[in-house]
Amino acid sequence: MEDSPQRAVRGLGSFPWYVGGTQVLGLACVVITGVWMGSYHGGYAWDGSGQEFNVHPLCMVLGLVFLYGDAILVYRVFRNESKRNVKVLHAVLHLLALIISIVGIVAVFDFHNQNKIPNMYSLHSWCGMLTFVLFCVQWLMGLGFFLFPGMLMALRSWYLPLHVFFGLAMLAMSLATCLLGISEKLFFSIQHTYSQFVPEGILGNMLGLLLVAFGILVGYVVTREDFRRPPHPEDEALSVHFKTLTEGGGSPTSP
Amino acid sequence: MEDSPQRAVRGLGSFPWYVGGTQVLGLACVVITGVWMGSYHGGYAWDGSGQEFNVHPLCMVLGLVFLYGDAILVYRVFRNESKRNVKVLHAVLHLLALIISIVGIVAVFDFHNQNKIPNMYSLHSWCGMLTFVLFCVQWLMGLGFFLFPGMLMALRSWYLPLHVFFGLAMLAMSLATCLLGISEKLFFSIQHTYSQFVPEGILGNMLGLLLVAFGILVGYVVTREDFRRPPHPEDEALSVHFKTLTEGGGSPTSP
Repeated sequence: MEDSPQRAVRGLGSFPWYVGGTQVLGLACVVITGVWMGSYHGGYAWDGSGQEFNVHPLCMVLGLVFLYGDAILVYRVFRNESKRNVKVLHAVLHLLALIISIVGIVAVFDFHNQNKIPNMYSLHSWCGMLTFVLFCVQWLMGLGFFLFPGMLMALRSWYLPLHVFFGLAMLAMSLATCLLGISEKLFFSIQHTYSQFVPEGILGNMLGLLLVAFGILVGYVVTREDFRRPPHPEDEALSVHFKTLTEGGGSPTSP
Repeated sequence: MEDSPQRAVRGLGSFPWYVGGTQVLGLACVVITGVWMGSYHGGYAWDGSGQEFNVHPLCMVLGLVFLYGDAILVYRVFRNESKRNVKVLHAVLHLLALIISIVGIVAVFDFHNQNKIPNMYSLHSWCGMLTFVLFCVQWLMGLGFFLFPGMLMALRSWYLPLHVFFGLAMLAMSLATCLLGISEKLFFSIQHTYSQFVPEGILGNMLGLLLVAFGILVGYVVTREDFRRPPHPEDEALSVHFKTLTEGGGSPTSP
């Protein structure tokens, strides 16, 4: 039986393949969404037409799936870089995801309003809005707890496991919302031919499975024990850098 | 700042409330599914009619959501009981979930076949079948690795984190499949009134959100550090009981 360091080295040997896998899957999801809306639904515009609707799925998959997943992965990919830089990169990628998803949400509301289609009645919209609101709350709380210099270390330690858990839970919610969106779009567009296994139906279903695979692989990379960020001496110094006002010691567990 | 044992005690104080919450949410999901199919779609039968279809959602929510979630939770709820008994309970609850979900799957295939409706074309069916097949594989692998007496401890230790990760990932897939099923059912049944916020639409959407809440709460209880099963001396004795043939030592990490 191997000892721990040997196992850790073997684990890290496969690490680039797993990360590469997430990127291939994530990019495939973005490209397939783009091609689906581009080829089957007339491309993109911002004029209240169906082409404005097409901006919605592309932005949501790019923002709240691919960039969201990558923002989570930075703590594993840059496992030996300065914690502060990785934190900032994590926040910036999430901010980018937030901005792109706002564009996607505005696109669908504007399309609905211009075409007198009611908003917010479907399960897709309920799950999507809940995910988006929680994502905004989590982003602001992350900023306050982990990048605001005056935050007590004890409060950081308390919040960190919640931040990590809800980060992954919301990625799952975001993916489930995408699946609902794909299913809704297919039932609106090809209701009478979907059951005949037409190419658009198969493309949409494949996109759904790729999104599931992306979520599972990101979740696996983030939760696998030997892929965790090792403790760095610099992380301790960071507490001093942030001039934390805590009386008690203890740095938060590495996410 | 509190020390660890104090924090652990405080954590466990809230434990029954969290577990109670999962049960309230899980039962609410089962009851709402039952009432939805009972009140809006004419109840239950096994005669190829729409009432036979109604068996499908009820069995899937009961089996692959509520019982599945409870099977996962037994390691936390019975945290001080004999590991062997908890393992057997975990396997039995999963077996029950498996049997009930097979009834649910047979119901929908039989309903489709009797009414010449094609099978397996929608994203709901693709995700559902994938989840069900993976669930069967995981159940058999769990049986082989953790209850088969001759299994090497080293192999158990290797498989345990994968079993735990995929157990939660498949619960998430199962929940996403339920959301797809709810959305599909609503678009089939009330396509022209769904956007007017009719009671059935709101009921279906609420059921979706309750399923999400159930999944999040089960995930939280299972992954929260201070809710973990403490190491028991009896767990070590269990290895002897199972007459494992391993040469290396080390019992698998407690799930």
